[in-house]
Amino acid sequence: MSDGVTGRLGVLGGGQLGRMTGLEGRPLGVEFRFYDPSSEAAAKQLGELVVGDFDDLEALRRFADGVDVVTYEFENVPVASAEFLAERVKVFPPPVALAKTQDRLIEKQFLFDLGIPVAPFRAIEDLPSLQKAVAAIGLPAVLKTRTLGYDGKGQVVLRTQADVERAWAALHGRPLILEQFVPFDQEASIVGVRGQSGTAFYPLVANIHRDGILHVTRAPGGLSAALQAAAAGHLNKLFDAFGYVGVCTIEFFVVGESLVVNEVAPRVHNSGHWTIEGAATSQFANHVRAVLGLPLGSTQALGASAMVNIIGALPRVADLLALDGVYVHLYGKRPRPGRKLGHVTIAHLSEIETERRLADVLAIVDGTR
Amino acid sequence: MSDGVTGRLGVLGGGQLGRMTGLEGRPLGVEFRFYDPSSEAAAKQLGELVVGDFDDLEALRRFADGVDVVTYEFENVPVASAEFLAERVKVFPPPVALAKTQDRLIEKQFLFDLGIPVAPFRAIEDLPSLQKAVAAIGLPAVLKTRTLGYDGKGQVVLRTQADVERAWAALHGRPLILEQFVPFDQEASIVGVRGQSGTAFYPLVANIHRDGILHVTRAPGGLSAALQAAAAGHLNKLFDAFGYVGVCTIEFFVVGESLVVNEVAPRVHNSGHWTIEGAATSQFANHVRAVLGLPLGSTQALGASAMVNIIGALPRVADLLALDGVYVHLYGKRPRPGRKLGHVTIAHLSEIETERRLADVLAIVDGTR
Repeated sequence: MSDGVTGRLGVLGGGQLGRMTGLEGRPLGVEFRFYDPSSEAAAKQLGELVVGDFDDLEALRRFADGVDVVTYEFENVPVASAEFLAERVKVFPPPVALAKTQDRLIEKQFLFDLGIPVAPFRAIEDLPSLQKAVAAIGLPAVLKTRTLGYDGKGQVVLRTQADVERAWAALHGRPLILEQFVPFDQEASIVGVRGQSGTAFYPLVANIHRDGILHVTRAPGGLSAALQAAAAGHLNKLFDAFGYVGVCTIEFFVVGESLVVNEVAPRVHNSGHWTIEGAATSQFANHVRAVLGLPLGSTQALGASAMVNIIGALPRVADLLALDGVYVHLYGKRPRPGRKLGHVTIAHLSEIETERRLADVLAIVDGTR
Repeated sequence: MSDGVTGRLGVLGGGQLGRMTGLEGRPLGVEFRFYDPSSEAAAKQLGELVVGDFDDLEALRRFADGVDVVTYEFENVPVASAEFLAERVKVFPPPVALAKTQDRLIEKQFLFDLGIPVAPFRAIEDLPSLQKAVAAIGLPAVLKTRTLGYDGKGQVVLRTQADVERAWAALHGRPLILEQFVPFDQEASIVGVRGQSGTAFYPLVANIHRDGILHVTRAPGGLSAALQAAAAGHLNKLFDAFGYVGVCTIEFFVVGESLVVNEVAPRVHNSGHWTIEGAATSQFANHVRAVLGLPLGSTQALGASAMVNIIGALPRVADLLALDGVYVHLYGKRPRPGRKLGHVTIAHLSEIETERRLADVLAIVDGTR
């Protein structure tokens, strides 16, 4: 601390999550070093950037040298790489959290064993095992790749028997899982944080996806106190099971007054971006605090908020900023179809004004696509 | 905008004000380039850094090449350098704002001519002119250097005739001004912003200085609506007189229900740091919006806030973060007596909780010194 530096944090992944972690962590006196395969990573210029593949142990060694703690913004870092780093420096969240969440089959089994509700699922080895699983689970169901799926990629919904072979043709060749399709009323997620002495949970938020990508988050999500408590309880079980340190997110399907876990992200999450303006402490600041052993900040919402993702094409920033209560976050990425380029937060307005402003923002953002 | 960049902003000065401008401007998709005589400038790593003296026209030319707008975080940039840049690229605030505020005599005369209240003042050429000015203005009075004074440096208070020669001995050799000492009830400041289509003013805040350096700001400052209106009116006169674009600050002495201008800073200001957490839009984001021609954001306070400067020595960050409603900003500077190393903001609490928390924060920060 004598040099004015609170801590030196290495972040695996230099995308927008790393960038926002840097923007929120630097005021705390934290120095950042990012690790990314691309020299054009979005987090560039918020700290040093080490370029390397996630399995390049020599580059990872250089990355770890001189940082106090390593964390990640990208959950598909190879577990072996995280463990290699953990022999040299503190790694938070612990690599076991990666090991249990990178593969949907392992994740589902792990959640099931903890007593956390998941949809019925089966491992799929071949077409007969898929047919057998469809018979057991029923239709509709979703066939998914076990690894590396995100934003709706690597998934096919099966509604009729005719879909079974089509889905197999589309995805076979990779390890697969079949899950019962959950007839959800809505989607929700909870972001929580476990520090070295305590936990804190943000409000359960309501999410709307489009083309498999998060489109809109409303925070708080208007869900019952019972659902909030259940969601926090599930996340707390994971915290304990992993000996977790940092921010973690669970995405849920809401069915009536019950929750079914969709997936776990052992990191800051797109559905928590509203916390930058909308909560007393942002998910990014709380992640930095947790992994560096600093006290956690309040997760209280400052009022109603909403978040809209900017995907594929950029709206005119001036049109958005002309609206009261609207905050624009661009990630410095070149537009490309389906790419997350930024997000817009609506905050500090009343609940009804927030809804109206959300409609205005959607008109501008969707008009751009 | 097709490359995801909202604008390229050059900032003269790479201190903490530039650093915070970068932190608040990058989410808007703005790329930064800083110019500073030191390669260790605090804004380093929030953008490119061009190192050069403020009168090095060749380095300034390189700095300006490829940026859309140049602004400054440091008002002692030579006017000739600002004008040199203004021939090549837009410079906001306009260089005339520098020309009229760098020299206390020119500033006071300019304010006086605009009908903005200032304390009686005289230019001082020699000891006889000082004695004559003391006779005219009366005691107590303050002898100040006309240029480059800040944080209470370059000032001597004259209380008795015996102080006259002592003050002259301390400061002679530089251009001087004598000002009547204002027997103020308190000190206050207003931060406002003029965009390319409109103005907005933050609440008038109450400031406490210690050893000539800002120590505590309370926002809003508990001052009357009449004083708020008067302060905004004075700042608006300056905006019109300068054809101003950007954030500007006036520091006042409050005497009963009237205001006397102490000084003008044509930039973001230490007494506006509370706006990062405490206002709908921070002074830094609004400065960036204004100079890039984007719509201004709301200057509304989100509740009560307070700000404490961290000067000379660093407190334990963990002790501060353990307190609810407390936000820490460190500037990445090495400790040195009298140096501004960071600040602490208290926000999102009730007015009475804010006062209690302020006492807690002062105990920690002052305990460090």
